[in-house]
Amino acid sequence: MLNPAAPPADRWLEAEALTATAFAPFGDVIDLDGAPPGRAGQDINQGHARRYDDLAALDLAGASGQARLSLFHARPRELPLRLRLLQRHPLGSQAFLPLSGRPWLVVVAPADARPDLARLRCFRVAPGQGVNYRAGVWHHPLIALQAPSDFLVIDRAGPGDNCDEFELAAPILWTRG
Amino acid sequence: MLNPAAPPADRWLEAEALTATAFAPFGDVIDLDGAPPGRAGQDINQGHARRYDDLAALDLAGASGQARLSLFHARPRELPLRLRLLQRHPLGSQAFLPLSGRPWLVVVAPADARPDLARLRCFRVAPGQGVNYRAGVWHHPLIALQAPSDFLVIDRAGPGDNCDEFELAAPILWTRG
Repeated sequence: MLNPAAPPADRWLEAEALTATAFAPFGDVIDLDGAPPGRAGQDINQGHARRYDDLAALDLAGASGQARLSLFHARPRELPLRLRLLQRHPLGSQAFLPLSGRPWLVVVAPADARPDLARLRCFRVAPGQGVNYRAGVWHHPLIALQAPSDFLVIDRAGPGDNCDEFELAAPILWTRG
Repeated sequence: MLNPAAPPADRWLEAEALTATAFAPFGDVIDLDGAPPGRAGQDINQGHARRYDDLAALDLAGASGQARLSLFHARPRELPLRLRLLQRHPLGSQAFLPLSGRPWLVVVAPADARPDLARLRCFRVAPGQGVNYRAGVWHHPLIALQAPSDFLVIDRAGPGDNCDEFELAAPILWTRG
């Protein structure tokens, strides 16, 4: 007879390298080191600067929303990490731009009404890479690594409930980065 | 008799240290190193992060506008610098967030219909400090120093003419930082 107290089998979510193509279903990869790949940019300021626009598809003005700039000071997580919670922001995008020059992790699932845990993905984010989650994309709270790390965040402020949470019970999911 | 070809007397614009109080008529100072001064912040992510909101008064959604995230790759200027041009963006704010860890300069004048050159100010910006120009504030194009420097820029995209320029003729103005 099965022991009714036995936990369900743990499941490992393997981390992948972050690329724009792999991340496209969830949003944008933002490269902060040098010119964005594949972008020509345009000269401005009488040739003293080159401008690369639309690093991310910011989507913040819907439902009477407005862009908001925040600083997140994140404590590092220890790996392996048990994944307990996913969040989503149905009314706007949310961009994370690392300031601390350390790698970090993102865990995402498609923007379904409930997160499909079979389609959960984990990405290793290089120092100097940011991401912008499309509205409604499920994501784990910030996973800083190694040391306390600061991130600029560009998301939506405004009326309405813009944060849904989903607790992961079974199967218990872990990632080791 | 005055020589009609003699240039008007040069004028030096002395640089000041950038503080939130001194910059208040023009916009926000954004401190990227550590917690914003005077802000308590709030714990989020089950205590794994502390969030500081509204680092700047982003004003981007007016006149059917939308937030835009850009990267400016700026060539350094040599000091002393002759000031030749001011710009303003009447329809939205514009934030500059340095990524390169080098000092830079801002030159601003109040948001009058024409820039009042008697009220022009120059501020020395420390590495790790950004600024957000309020809509309509006159400012010199980006003044990076020492080496090529990258800046994240958050400004407004949308319909309408959002860039006015004003050429500085006489008096000829210089700043030495």
